[in-house]
Amino acid sequence: MILTVTLNTALDITHRVPALRPHASHRVTEVIERPGGKGVNVARVLVALGHEVTVTGFAGGATGRVLRDRLAGTPGLVDALVEVTGATRRTVTVVEDRTGQVTCFNEPGPLIAPDEWAAFQERYEHLLGSAAAVALCGSLPPGVPVNAYAGLVRAARAADVPVLLDTGGEPLRRAVAARPDVIKPNADELAELTGAHEPVRAAQDARRRGARAVVASLGPEGLLATTSEGRWRATPPAPLAGHPTGAGDSVVAGLLSGLADHLPWPDRLVRATALSAATVAAPAAGEFDRRTYEELLGRVSVTELASAA
Amino acid sequence: MILTVTLNTALDITHRVPALRPHASHRVTEVIERPGGKGVNVARVLVALGHEVTVTGFAGGATGRVLRDRLAGTPGLVDALVEVTGATRRTVTVVEDRTGQVTCFNEPGPLIAPDEWAAFQERYEHLLGSAAAVALCGSLPPGVPVNAYAGLVRAARAADVPVLLDTGGEPLRRAVAARPDVIKPNADELAELTGAHEPVRAAQDARRRGARAVVASLGPEGLLATTSEGRWRATPPAPLAGHPTGAGDSVVAGLLSGLADHLPWPDRLVRATALSAATVAAPAAGEFDRRTYEELLGRVSVTELASAA
Repeated sequence: MILTVTLNTALDITHRVPALRPHASHRVTEVIERPGGKGVNVARVLVALGHEVTVTGFAGGATGRVLRDRLAGTPGLVDALVEVTGATRRTVTVVEDRTGQVTCFNEPGPLIAPDEWAAFQERYEHLLGSAAAVALCGSLPPGVPVNAYAGLVRAARAADVPVLLDTGGEPLRRAVAARPDVIKPNADELAELTGAHEPVRAAQDARRRGARAVVASLGPEGLLATTSEGRWRATPPAPLAGHPTGAGDSVVAGLLSGLADHLPWPDRLVRATALSAATVAAPAAGEFDRRTYEELLGRVSVTELASAA
Repeated sequence: MILTVTLNTALDITHRVPALRPHASHRVTEVIERPGGKGVNVARVLVALGHEVTVTGFAGGATGRVLRDRLAGTPGLVDALVEVTGATRRTVTVVEDRTGQVTCFNEPGPLIAPDEWAAFQERYEHLLGSAAAVALCGSLPPGVPVNAYAGLVRAARAADVPVLLDTGGEPLRRAVAARPDVIKPNADELAELTGAHEPVRAAQDARRRGARAVVASLGPEGLLATTSEGRWRATPPAPLAGHPTGAGDSVVAGLLSGLADHLPWPDRLVRATALSAATVAAPAAGEFDRRTYEELLGRVSVTELASAA
């Protein structure tokens, strides 16, 4: 199975309104509620691609119960979340009918107690025993040490499980030195990590800091992969209009799916790019459009770049 | 006991953000969650004033469970809500640190099934047997007939229980003819009901339509009461700065509290005006500031108006 870790799971609530008017009262015309947090989104895409997936991380409170009830209804997905006392956070996304534009309100996560963090680490090491690959995704809730991902990367490497890390800021900086197999920063996260704003140079620098491969997501310009086997740029045939929400999680799912299927790097990048573009094109934020995905698989272009100077 | 009816209860969520930026992503710095819906708010104020209160209406789903858990922790308040299959709605209020201004997103209520509505009516008639007064508050969830309040007013009058109605639009129009003891419209609701924009004239018209007494809440200008015993205007000593959220519910609580304590109309209006102003002045939306309330009790002015032409 593929293991995804979401330390800061969320109950994602989408509110549709005709138009957002600051300082007014709005009647919400449609409510969508679904399990969220980056690793949970990655798991949903992987399950849709036919993989067996286990999700772990933390869940608690009434919001955590709703999240777990929904996960229980997803075939192919195993819930190995650790129950905590604090309540799983909510995210509220307000979508305007008029423009399709979104405004998000993200609650902070629950405070994780030291014994809850210890219980998670034990659960994680046990799950690594049957994992073909693991993804560590998203922000850290309060109470989890800022070097958490460094320890989780080391545990995966000790268990010989390929590990992909998708986070930013200080948690990313601390974990890179533990030599994750892949990091997937966006342009901002990569610049923050390295101080370099030119992606090719920044990715090279991130590898020097410890990441074995860097797949930078550059929005509509696609992906830039810098690995020990070569460097590639993967781009969709044309920029697609739509919601960027979840596009990064689909990149992670595509990379993991290709890794689990033992594909070479260029084919993993095709899968990741097509999934990401099909997510942007989907009518519901964070879902992917399967027909678009299958059409794009044959139309993503992957170009090998000259080796670094 | 005093009975309050909230057919469309809510889990009220407040999100504090530094500033609201449309189409951006916001980190919420503080989350407050509490039971809501007008009748629930009225009950909370009544309990704080020392009354025994029973709340009824509908609650369901995970949000309904949270709401009921919170009510169970309020001494003096009895939960007689009817469990329904649909989920209790949420309201999300975004408060800006910078300006204190609020933006609200109100979910629609759950669909109430015919047997759930029938179960409520039975529960309500039973509760009337031990009620000193009843308040019918707020909007109707989907599935509840638009003439619902007319029936509930008639049942209260048949049981000889004084009934106060606080709603608007078509549910108010239908219920006025059933002769509620008191209606408490704001200026807009009163104008919509009567077609008259001058409050004194509009209140007189609302009495002709069936309301035995009309207490119109005119915002910072206080209250205008039109009854069979006389007409009064009650005003706070000075307009108070703050959140108007919940001020109308505090008026209802003040009127009911004075009714239950057998106070004459002018004293009921003093209580309602002081509570309303103390709610506007409270730091948390929908709470009232007890010291401000007690200070204002001696400083609200009530003026008797000449009898209607």
